Amino acid sequence: MKAAVVPALGEPLEIRDLPVPEPDAGQIVVKIEASGLCHTDIHAARGDWPVKPKIPLIPGHEGVGTVVAVGEGDSPIAVGDRVALPWLGKACGNCRYCITGNETYCIAPAYMGYTIDGSYAEYALAFASHAVKVPDAVTSFDAAPITCAGVTTYAALKAANPQPADTVSVVGIGGLGHLGLQYAKAFGSSTVAVDVEDEKLALAEELGADLVVDARGDQAEQIAGIGGVDIALVTVPSPAVMNAALASLNPRGRLVLVGLPADNRLEIPVFETVLRGISVIGSLVGTRNDLTECFDLHARGATRVVAQPRELESVNECFEEVLSGQVPARLVFEFA
Amino acid sequence: MKAAVVPALGEPLEIRDLPVPEPDAGQIVVKIEASGLCHTDIHAARGDWPVKPKIPLIPGHEGVGTVVAVGEGDSPIAVGDRVALPWLGKACGNCRYCITGNETYCIAPAYMGYTIDGSYAEYALAFASHAVKVPDAVTSFDAAPITCAGVTTYAALKAANPQPADTVSVVGIGGLGHLGLQYAKAFGSSTVAVDVEDEKLALAEELGADLVVDARGDQAEQIAGIGGVDIALVTVPSPAVMNAALASLNPRGRLVLVGLPADNRLEIPVFETVLRGISVIGSLVGTRNDLTECFDLHARGATRVVAQPRELESVNECFEEVLSGQVPARLVFEFA
Amino acid sequence: MKAAVVPALGEPLEIRDLPVPEPDAGQIVVKIEASGLCHTDIHAARGDWPVKPKIPLIPGHEGVGTVVAVGEGDSPIAVGDRVALPWLGKACGNCRYCITGNETYCIAPAYMGYTIDGSYAEYALAFASHAVKVPDAVTSFDAAPITCAGVTTYAALKAANPQPADTVSVVGIGGLGHLGLQYAKAFGSSTVAVDVEDEKLALAEELGADLVVDARGDQAEQIAGIGGVDIALVTVPSPAVMNAALASLNPRGRLVLVGLPADNRLEIPVFETVLRGISVIGSLVGTRNDLTECFDLHARGATRVVAQPRELESVNECFEEVLSGQVPARLVFEFA
Amino acid sequence: MKAAVVPALGEPLEIRDLPVPEPDAGQIVVKIEASGLCHTDIHAARGDWPVKPKIPLIPGHEGVGTVVAVGEGDSPIAVGDRVALPWLGKACGNCRYCITGNETYCIAPAYMGYTIDGSYAEYALAFASHAVKVPDAVTSFDAAPITCAGVTTYAALKAANPQPADTVSVVGIGGLGHLGLQYAKAFGSSTVAVDVEDEKLALAEELGADLVVDARGDQAEQIAGIGGVDIALVTVPSPAVMNAALASLNPRGRLVLVGLPADNRLEIPVFETVLRGISVIGSLVGTRNDLTECFDLHARGATRVVAQPRELESVNECFEEVLSGQVPARLVFEFA
Repeated sequence: MKAAVVPALGEPLEIRDLPVPEPDAGQIVVKIEASGLCHTDIHAARGDWPVKPKIPLIPGHEGVGTVVAVGEGDSPIAVGDRVALPWLGKACGNCRYCITGNETYCIAPAYMGYTIDGSYAEYALAFASHAVKVPDAVTSFDAAPITCAGVTTYAALKAANPQPADTVSVVGIGGLGHLGLQYAKAFGSSTVAVDVEDEKLALAEELGADLVVDARGDQAEQIAGIGGVDIALVTVPSPAVMNAALASLNPRGRLVLVGLPADNRLEIPVFETVLRGISVIGSLVGTRNDLTECFDLHARGATRVVAQPRELESVNECFEEVLSGQVPARLVFEFA
Repeated sequence: MKAAVVPALGEPLEIRDLPVPEPDAGQIVVKIEASGLCHTDIHAARGDWPVKPKIPLIPGHEGVGTVVAVGEGDSPIAVGDRVALPWLGKACGNCRYCITGNETYCIAPAYMGYTIDGSYAEYALAFASHAVKVPDAVTSFDAAPITCAGVTTYAALKAANPQPADTVSVVGIGGLGHLGLQYAKAFGSSTVAVDVEDEKLALAEELGADLVVDARGDQAEQIAGIGGVDIALVTVPSPAVMNAALASLNPRGRLVLVGLPADNRLEIPVFETVLRGISVIGSLVGTRNDLTECFDLHARGATRVVAQPRELESVNECFEEVLSGQVPARLVFEFA
Repeated sequence: MKAAVVPALGEPLEIRDLPVPEPDAGQIVVKIEASGLCHTDIHAARGDWPVKPKIPLIPGHEGVGTVVAVGEGDSPIAVGDRVALPWLGKACGNCRYCITGNETYCIAPAYMGYTIDGSYAEYALAFASHAVKVPDAVTSFDAAPITCAGVTTYAALKAANPQPADTVSVVGIGGLGHLGLQYAKAFGSSTVAVDVEDEKLALAEELGADLVVDARGDQAEQIAGIGGVDIALVTVPSPAVMNAALASLNPRGRLVLVGLPADNRLEIPVFETVLRGISVIGSLVGTRNDLTECFDLHARGATRVVAQPRELESVNECFEEVLSGQVPARLVFEFA
Repeated sequence: MKAAVVPALGEPLEIRDLPVPEPDAGQIVVKIEASGLCHTDIHAARGDWPVKPKIPLIPGHEGVGTVVAVGEGDSPIAVGDRVALPWLGKACGNCRYCITGNETYCIAPAYMGYTIDGSYAEYALAFASHAVKVPDAVTSFDAAPITCAGVTTYAALKAANPQPADTVSVVGIGGLGHLGLQYAKAFGSSTVAVDVEDEKLALAEELGADLVVDARGDQAEQIAGIGGVDIALVTVPSPAVMNAALASLNPRGRLVLVGLPADNRLEIPVFETVLRGISVIGSLVGTRNDLTECFDLHARGATRVVAQPRELESVNECFEEVLSGQVPARLVFEFA
């Protein structure tokens, strides 16, 4: 099979011809139909973060396709099922976090396209327990970005508990944010979309944001005009952007972080945080159930995925495209 | 009446002879029996924070005494009631925060000993609506530190929702922390006390901390030995201390902040915050109901107040004493 | 002024000419523009419930109008404000329930049109603290049913914490239910509307229910077809209807009750309640803040009020009309 | 091996000599050291409930012992581990309930001693995924009652979210209630113990209940004397007892049910439920994590197990003993 492989940290990916994997007990093999490109894949390939990925690595944690083989033993997944393979490739099922509904914080996880091989390939090996079925009403192309960009923003909002009477700002209307904005609407909240590019501001408008804020102008003033926000979901990994979002919060407001800035530091003003009862909440992807809920919301018409198809052979060009900031929302590798 | 007055920001307090105040409608006059000294009073007198207090100012927001006069109209408080006068001197009662149980974040508050005169005086003027009755079983001397140091740490813990199965660390076992530690125990959680002074570590031991950590040694190692903590309540206004507490948290852990560092900046590591689902929560004092609950807990024997009596005439010396770090827990001005 | 008065429990109402009330301190007088007819008014006039109303009584707790006089002292309400006068005419502001965001369970409340006179009159006397401002974008006619039927179902849903991934059934699509259904949609949940009348089923369809169930047929089967519901909001005060709703719940499901059956008894199956982790939740009207949120949702276009105008002189005929079950949703008395 | 077997519903149990079971993949065999007798076992043997158990049946879902064999494949449990085998013998791990921390409501569960054989035997077959490790500090004898009576009341309290400022009544101080009372204390709440037998009232006193109520007297008056309770945990499967508990609740109070009355009906007063915002909550056993937490609390000294040892051969006499109401708290079969 064809696969995109990171041969060494910082090196360009190579398209290699590898054997189709065989499933052990508890595993499945999925013929990939679509696999989204997440910025995390670029960080993985470059080794940007404190914890490094396996090498050589097949990246990809937004893979969707049809199961062609199932390992021995009982399995919740059968050959022929169409499934998504998210970042959380496996969790132990037995730790405090797995049992209490917090499996993304499992003490012994496997991460697709990071600690185990991912879905930048014609076939991917996965654990049956953590593959998530995709309903018929959701195409594989749409399912791919939902599998990480979607569920990450959905679970992040859940962590902040948005209500219809709340105002939620989503900062950065790209791959994550364009879905986050739609989920904020799905929770019934009033929405504010913040970005600095005309195309993304137009997209936010189109997706129904109640207020679209061009952060090249006076963001604080525009948001003050509607009386502040209760929840700010920041998808842009920039401390300056996070701080502007923090400053826009009402008392008891919640800043939710899902992105990782290059220098890993966010300086928060303690005086305002204490006096106004602010919370800063980190949130990591979402559970299998969160993803099922995202698929159901998509099937119900609550979300629209904005993405462009690409071929796996162009993976290095695609990385450049994303890094240049040219991509309107998401790139998705399609497989014949 | 005798009162301690800040004549100008940064000046020593003066003991002045002032007329006993008269209550307007909705107000009461309280003959003060005890009034705690909170570090905030020092910040107020020096004008350390972005928002400045009234000048001249009578500080004090841990005043406890007996009502001697009630203004016209219906009142929840009668002459003869013994009451506490907390930081939240008045809240509007009508805003979103007041109605939803979050009155400390009221949009139009009055703060005792900051925006209105406080209880460093023989008599204090207060709003009847926000005076809190003190049960007979709680002495005025004990009630004073509970009125701010107590309720602040109690409400801060509530914001983090401690459970019996959680481990809670309280960092800094002084005026706030020695009560916070006891509240953590009252929630049924396992407790860790962290400090750098022998006397305070001994106090923590005496108050029943399950683990006492001397932060002059390897704090991280000691806390790792018990498997990390779920909630860290930091009463020390130092970013370095806050970061050590953040690093001690388990996944889904909560760092609760109640103190204000001099330079108002806390740098948090975004990578760990996101990957481990950490929350940083600011919490400001507590509601009237929180304070009533603190008094009830004290009456039930759940807390012991550690404080030393002082005379109001020595207020400037007391400020020095607190700043020198010599005070084991709390100083309380007693009135004959 | 003209007012509808219950002269004695069980007697027809009389239209009387009474003096316009004068406000004491803390009170306001409101020139009523619209006042909804709630089934509770009929129960009040008949003395149906264990606790009896004042007699003679002016009913009405969905009054909306413009303030024409304000009593002495500070007031959050000014002459000229347009306000709604809900069931919770006054709460003490100081009890455990008032302080924690649960003012509808105040230990010393006054109820409009029950323990104090209500808004079936050209002018109504009310407490300024508990009058709720109506935004310009909401007409008085629309505001009236929102003031009780709306806020009651909205707060009832809040008590059950509906999420976008939940399915919520609203049973009874009358005065309360037609608004409850729209609030369930506002929370982002999938919705099921249950009724037994063609007209109401058609209304539910029009209001966008995802599934409309005719309970004259096999309700259980129809709801099983979509996999059960997570929350059932029952607005019909009938134990049989409540039990059918209980039976439709998924594990961890919540049955929310807001209506009072004539015989005050609901028999619940303990085996199913325990084994499936079901909750039965009683909910009483809503807070001032809940009502403000309902008005905001209406101003944002999230709700449509279905009501018919009536004249106060026809109050006894209107009671008959409601009792006959002929009223599609709500009757509202309009004042010139 | 020796096992107690229900040969047919309603028949006395027989002590049979059966082959020691062999573990399939995912299973373990446990040499039982202690196995508690839960009233559910009697209901199972008699077929009292709507859903019937397997027949022939080895009852028992409070088994504790040491693992002697592990089936093929990866396992979280090893030979030599000491484990508890609770009611929830297996859950699917993949359904909405399993993933969100609600595994006791799994859609495809196996129940120990009901749908699969239990621990009234020298050896028990179990699923490794749902066996729970017992810490060294907890004896097998103590662990047995905690495995169902303990975790059931602990999880029931969790469902009602007890706080230190709450008052919790535990009704029935038997096998479940004597542990429930101690857990209520572990949550920091004030406690009320209600029973009708001198011995159990004395036990409640000894275990530290803040108020002990003899329900042969005027229960309502005694509880009114302390101002009502916020949570009532009823372990007695009697509607009359449940209603008395309901009547003792404060506004926003929660009645938690864990027991199953013979006639499966509880009649609740809707008027009071709605007007006072009461919730009635069903709760079924607890998760693996709840059980781990119960063991940790026991190891920390927060609970004391009151139980009497018995021999398996006397199982039918033990059933009679329990039915006669003579048993102070719990019977536990001990194995040599």
